[in-house]
Amino acid sequence: MARTAGRSRRAAKNGHKGNGQRESIALRRTQTERASDDTHRPSGPSEQRRPVAGRLVIIGGHEEKEGERLILRQVSRCAKGGRVVVCTVASDVPGEVWKDYQRAFRDMGCKDVVHLDIERRADLLIEPPLDLLEGAEVFFFTGGAQLKITTRFAGTRLCAAVEEFYHQGGTVAGTSAGASVMADTMLVSGPGRETHKIGETLQMAPGLGFLRDVIIDQHFAERGRIGRLLGAVAQNPRFLGLGIDEDTAIVVEREEAFTVYGSGAVYVADAENVTYTNVAEEEEARTLSIFNVRLHVLSQGDSFDLRSRHPSHEFAKTVERQLDKSEHASSGAAVH
Amino acid sequence: MARTAGRSRRAAKNGHKGNGQRESIALRRTQTERASDDTHRPSGPSEQRRPVAGRLVIIGGHEEKEGERLILRQVSRCAKGGRVVVCTVASDVPGEVWKDYQRAFRDMGCKDVVHLDIERRADLLIEPPLDLLEGAEVFFFTGGAQLKITTRFAGTRLCAAVEEFYHQGGTVAGTSAGASVMADTMLVSGPGRETHKIGETLQMAPGLGFLRDVIIDQHFAERGRIGRLLGAVAQNPRFLGLGIDEDTAIVVEREEAFTVYGSGAVYVADAENVTYTNVAEEEEARTLSIFNVRLHVLSQGDSFDLRSRHPSHEFAKTVERQLDKSEHASSGAAVH
Repeated sequence: MARTAGRSRRAAKNGHKGNGQRESIALRRTQTERASDDTHRPSGPSEQRRPVAGRLVIIGGHEEKEGERLILRQVSRCAKGGRVVVCTVASDVPGEVWKDYQRAFRDMGCKDVVHLDIERRADLLIEPPLDLLEGAEVFFFTGGAQLKITTRFAGTRLCAAVEEFYHQGGTVAGTSAGASVMADTMLVSGPGRETHKIGETLQMAPGLGFLRDVIIDQHFAERGRIGRLLGAVAQNPRFLGLGIDEDTAIVVEREEAFTVYGSGAVYVADAENVTYTNVAEEEEARTLSIFNVRLHVLSQGDSFDLRSRHPSHEFAKTVERQLDKSEHASSGAAVH
Repeated sequence: MARTAGRSRRAAKNGHKGNGQRESIALRRTQTERASDDTHRPSGPSEQRRPVAGRLVIIGGHEEKEGERLILRQVSRCAKGGRVVVCTVASDVPGEVWKDYQRAFRDMGCKDVVHLDIERRADLLIEPPLDLLEGAEVFFFTGGAQLKITTRFAGTRLCAAVEEFYHQGGTVAGTSAGASVMADTMLVSGPGRETHKIGETLQMAPGLGFLRDVIIDQHFAERGRIGRLLGAVAQNPRFLGLGIDEDTAIVVEREEAFTVYGSGAVYVADAENVTYTNVAEEEEARTLSIFNVRLHVLSQGDSFDLRSRHPSHEFAKTVERQLDKSEHASSGAAVH
């Protein structure tokens, strides 16, 4: 297990703030209020969960690490001067990946960026580095393989601590494999660029469960994954399918709603009103049928209420103006 | 212009049958009746058209030309012993393409298979080979480039004769480029594997208009084209988006309804209830937003009512049994 401190790892931090204290990113109050009044959605298991004060930044992979860095700027904004923990457990080349993110976050003014790699689960069991979370504001999962994250990290004391950190108001971010693990059920593998076949290996596994009732796919348009996402939601229409393009992210506030940032789109496949699918009825060699999926394509500035399952739009420019303002503010504070 | 007669080009044929005389392929009467009663759809320009007695076979490309040939078997079934005209105008290698189809159709028992290539529009203007349609039952457009079909063929006397042939009950089939030209507006080019950008070149052009109120895309899942199809229907929600996978076809009866055949799927994107799109509002560099698309994925045996815009399902096996039966029947009649 590698633990590399950033340039000023022990620098002063803000510590956690209480519920509802954190700044909301581009989610309009009116929308959240509307969601609270919405009685349309059946109350599922998630309704009984204890409230979440934190934020998720779920990235479709290949976010810019130089130049404009629209997505990572969102992440660094969530850090608000506190620590960013970069967890490279998913990666085959954790050292290289860490260097790229360390450089990117420092360039954006983050002073306390630390590295967590986990080579063996046993290391986490013997001596969990819980102190990494002291003063942390962001816990970031890089890309790689989903199952490396869950097999080495899930169910450990450190994982429980990250979940608590998130519940208390921390930001958990993840890109590519790090995006898929956010859901309670994660897509592990399955072919792209074809329509789902019923007997096809669409490997799914339990994820970290930070965001309930969704299935997340990444590199979405780029790898032609609409077929496999529809194949996944067909199996259980309670789960909302979220397909996130590269260089695109959703920022989820308190598990209630998300806003889209980045150059691509987010596809939301809502199978709630599906009238027919052959997924449980036909032979395995058959091709998927599914009728009446509600599909939304959201781009930067659009938001989506996860409880009422309604999208709403905000002109992209408004969001860009916000981003510009925050960029100027954080550049001012940064030590270069 | 090449005109190559098949083995028995002048063999006896059945000639045209009147409206409603032709056999319906797997479209249940009840469904058609329901469609007639449906008053939900607004009556558009197409409602005033004269009735169509013919059939379209619209293929997503790469249909099998050897082995099971599920799709081409459908086409040869429509020939019912009459002539099949193979039009290779779209292709850069018309001779090779013709040979492949000639072999395939002959293997399936079609005795009168003729070739039409059009090298120059002028040839069609000077001496249109209208006699090719004598006793024809199927007019088949091969793949290649959409604009070659329209620039050389559209608006000629031969094109008008093919349209009349279709209206009188003939079958017009097309694969790949030959599929796209069936619509009144055809997608010519546009990038796959990415979400549509508003200012992106999504080249569209007027098609042959055999099937109204739709936009057809082919090689659909294989080339990741959901983004560009949504980009197209966003621009005018009256048009139903039809994305057809490779080795997959829709058989459209009398412009009323279609049934799906083949190994892949047909995606139907219905934008009628779309509540918002940014396609006319945002700057050109922006990514498409579109909310509330109704998406259906149809596989073999499913059908779709084009007037009410409702899918219905038929177990794939039932259709396969029909296909098997018809295969045995036509094999019996074939001269090998």
